[in-house]
Amino acid sequence: MKRAYMDNAAATPVRPEVLEAMLPFFTERFGNPSAVYDLGAEIKEVMEEQRGKVARLLGAGRDEIIFTSSGAEANNLALKGMALATFLKRGKHLIVSAIEHHSVLNSARFLEKFFDFEVTFLPVDKYGRVDPERLKKALTPATVLVSIGHASNEIGTLQDIPGLVTVCREAGVPFHTDAVASVGQVTVDVKELGVDLLTISGPALGAPKGIGALYFRNKLRLVPQLNGGIQERGRRGGTENIPGIVGLGKAAELAVQELDEKAVYLAKLRDLLVAGISAKVPSVFYTGHPDARLPGHASFCFEGIEGEALVYRLSSQGIYANTGSACASKALKTSPVLGAIGIPPEVAQGSLVFTLSRDNREDEVNQVLEHLPQAVENLRSFSPVWRKKMAAGA
Amino acid sequence: MKRAYMDNAAATPVRPEVLEAMLPFFTERFGNPSAVYDLGAEIKEVMEEQRGKVARLLGAGRDEIIFTSSGAEANNLALKGMALATFLKRGKHLIVSAIEHHSVLNSARFLEKFFDFEVTFLPVDKYGRVDPERLKKALTPATVLVSIGHASNEIGTLQDIPGLVTVCREAGVPFHTDAVASVGQVTVDVKELGVDLLTISGPALGAPKGIGALYFRNKLRLVPQLNGGIQERGRRGGTENIPGIVGLGKAAELAVQELDEKAVYLAKLRDLLVAGISAKVPSVFYTGHPDARLPGHASFCFEGIEGEALVYRLSSQGIYANTGSACASKALKTSPVLGAIGIPPEVAQGSLVFTLSRDNREDEVNQVLEHLPQAVENLRSFSPVWRKKMAAGA
Repeated sequence: MKRAYMDNAAATPVRPEVLEAMLPFFTERFGNPSAVYDLGAEIKEVMEEQRGKVARLLGAGRDEIIFTSSGAEANNLALKGMALATFLKRGKHLIVSAIEHHSVLNSARFLEKFFDFEVTFLPVDKYGRVDPERLKKALTPATVLVSIGHASNEIGTLQDIPGLVTVCREAGVPFHTDAVASVGQVTVDVKELGVDLLTISGPALGAPKGIGALYFRNKLRLVPQLNGGIQERGRRGGTENIPGIVGLGKAAELAVQELDEKAVYLAKLRDLLVAGISAKVPSVFYTGHPDARLPGHASFCFEGIEGEALVYRLSSQGIYANTGSACASKALKTSPVLGAIGIPPEVAQGSLVFTLSRDNREDEVNQVLEHLPQAVENLRSFSPVWRKKMAAGA
Repeated sequence: MKRAYMDNAAATPVRPEVLEAMLPFFTERFGNPSAVYDLGAEIKEVMEEQRGKVARLLGAGRDEIIFTSSGAEANNLALKGMALATFLKRGKHLIVSAIEHHSVLNSARFLEKFFDFEVTFLPVDKYGRVDPERLKKALTPATVLVSIGHASNEIGTLQDIPGLVTVCREAGVPFHTDAVASVGQVTVDVKELGVDLLTISGPALGAPKGIGALYFRNKLRLVPQLNGGIQERGRRGGTENIPGIVGLGKAAELAVQELDEKAVYLAKLRDLLVAGISAKVPSVFYTGHPDARLPGHASFCFEGIEGEALVYRLSSQGIYANTGSACASKALKTSPVLGAIGIPPEVAQGSLVFTLSRDNREDEVNQVLEHLPQAVENLRSFSPVWRKKMAAGA
């Protein structure tokens, strides 16, 4: 069966060029960058080159990049590292949006629980955007950090980060953005965005799982969250994952070269997908912002069905997508992100998310358009809610 | 030039069998184990198989293994995770030995600084061992955890873990051991050792950097330190590093098969090295325990010289070893471990550590024995301290 893999936010294959760059560092060039002899010094040099490549992708300085084991770890370091470095001076208030990634939300809750931080979870509009005026009102003299993601993996919406940063700059509050969903799809430049801290992850760029990075504006203090030796200039302990770092460096280099072309390509496929689904399936909601969104992201809610069942059904046709709602135990729990943009729970249940990559082709979009309408119709025919609605409408 | 690489505690090449096992998981089998469709379920199954292999190596249950990004992260999770899970009930006291790895010592200091924990840094005897009686006296009703490493990477000494555990059991205090240095060299069985938590790392077994694991006895509560999703049953967030996990699983499988033979082989090489160096170099101290030590570990202090200079000199002869002392900026700082076992600073400066692997051969030991005496003599001839001592002795 032909495979149409469109769940790239969940997992991506490592790019062949990236794997090729990594391979020698597993076996031949395996030295520890902290070693004083040549085998170590040589690896340290390689590591710093990769740091330079990641910095170039983000418009940052080389010494403003910290390698971590994932985007999640970088988010933890940004929130907890900043909070613990500054709470004595500033206070114990933190602001995040209500639709952040678990690693941001749960880092905030960690600070709430163990350090008595007060956390403001900012609401978003129907497109998933934070209103700068609302952010402004939420700031207090005790605010140590604002963390609002660049884009949502679930609804694809891009925030107006410069607008939000302006508000924080005026108040002297540092700003962090999680750019795991956006990096490699749209320009992510720390100077253009104006952010003080920014998270990326390897898999988002075709590098392997197990590597991520945090940009932090020079001179910011950060309390390390992974305590160990003086790696990463004392900000993150643990022996450096050199093959992963080399993979991220190579992926960053490729991203710089390919970004513009890729964004156009992804948007073209995405538009075909959205237009086709909107035309062929009745009672479908296109979630997230219609324009200010990731080029490779299309997210929907189909009334009357359960997203997990739809994902499962599609996978039997070789189509791989994701659902924002998760069926936890017996209680149907719907996505907090969809709740935050005002989608009623019974609709949010039928969430389906496509995240495209440069490996996707137009015939794969057609494969989706061929099978999805039938799958939705079929599942709806088993849905008492849907049948009741149809009967009422008839 | 022939290379004699004997710094395996700092870095090891990934074993070819391990890399081969990993490769498909970078490219073909790249799915996210949390995905509901087949590509995800299949990867989840692979991941759980690897967990089983690691559990088998340690004599643990499959659901008692948490994958982390390194041994350092596992140590952080053990100390901070246990401390935060139990301090409300027990209190704020922690015991570690004075010769632990940075990731243990600095996790303890983190708890001291940010949670007002009282930390007891237990002294060790001249071999680097903790006296169980001394541990017993240090325990208080507020002690949440004792963390004492199975073996020291710097002096090779194995602790009497069962003896130390007995003392903690009587007091009902959980016991953690960092087994990064010992795993794959001696039997590391959590039941035999009696520990409640135990840390291992990938590189120690010929798996890549970027993967480690924590054993925790079932039913222990642990507060996650890397906040994120519900990966690792809620104890460690972040997308799982599947290729790394597969590498660790394969390496664990090989370690089970090879352990006995390997230990004998390493001890043979080590004994040749120790006997040769002791016979050929005057004024040398063999540090650590003479018998209760890692089979592949030989550590020395050479009076009158600086370890870093010796390491550098040896590397020019293709010999790669480590030094426990580090020349930080201009001030000569000697190793806290060597200080803790009572080596005077001027002797501790001349520390040299060999950590052998199954790839080392007898001719490499001979290569060391051929070049080391000359290197030591040469460096000593430039040492004013040494010349003064010789003049006084003559």
